[in-house]
Amino acid sequence: MKTPEEIEQYFHAKIPLTKAMGVRVASYDSHGLRLEAPLALNFNHLGTAFGGSLHTVATLCGYGLLWLELADADSHVVIAECTMSFRKPVTGDLHAFCPRPSEEDMAFFRAKFEKNGKARIRLRVIVGDEAQPAAEFEGVFVARR
Amino acid sequence: MKTPEEIEQYFHAKIPLTKAMGVRVASYDSHGLRLEAPLALNFNHLGTAFGGSLHTVATLCGYGLLWLELADADSHVVIAECTMSFRKPVTGDLHAFCPRPSEEDMAFFRAKFEKNGKARIRLRVIVGDEAQPAAEFEGVFVARR
Repeated sequence: MKTPEEIEQYFHAKIPLTKAMGVRVASYDSHGLRLEAPLALNFNHLGTAFGGSLHTVATLCGYGLLWLELADADSHVVIAECTMSFRKPVTGDLHAFCPRPSEEDMAFFRAKFEKNGKARIRLRVIVGDEAQPAAEFEGVFVARR
Repeated sequence: MKTPEEIEQYFHAKIPLTKAMGVRVASYDSHGLRLEAPLALNFNHLGTAFGGSLHTVATLCGYGLLWLELADADSHVVIAECTMSFRKPVTGDLHAFCPRPSEEDMAFFRAKFEKNGKARIRLRVIVGDEAQPAAEFEGVFVARR
């Protein structure tokens, strides 16, 4: 399993915007992937977190989780579609959490990917406090070999 | 009517991520608001435009159009929800266009805003070539006094 530092270095090297946003990997474990970014680099005209930044952290969290779960150097993960609801302003640092899909969902996804060299999965990302999310993201990600 | 340079300066000053992304205002006129950003600052692990950057440019395009149309220094515009479909990779610079809503839609929105000090409107943003969009964004934006 990759360490948070390795994942962070990969993001910063491959997707320069994540470095400009100061994205950090807070944790990656059996629960899922947790990202953070400082408000100081991601505020808007109201001094709260910019919607574009919240969306980017959420997208990266879903993309990152799937890339880590696949752990297949020859596969590419891209986003196909997404929806996001913003419930309340984020007044501090940005936090996103993508829970690991169920074993069943991952097994289905993997089987399809092995067979067709392509598969899609829907991932949910929670922004802010998990009990009372500031925003919720749902994205369909596609992996291709 | 604000010039593209004035709008760009406002974005860069108020939302630092837009500067890190190199967002430029290509035009603002009776057709709508057009934004651009260089691929060099917004690529992903595949060398194409990062989904987070595409989403951010689209969000900013919708937000900016409504802010410009309101032209009310005391009002705030925020995003409430959005959906985005990614149809094909963007292999060059990022382009987003938010067409001005119809006069009817804007009149309805303005009347509600005047009466309640709060109103919402759905805006569409096209990413890439307008005839064959690379991605399409739809967002509900809320203005508050």
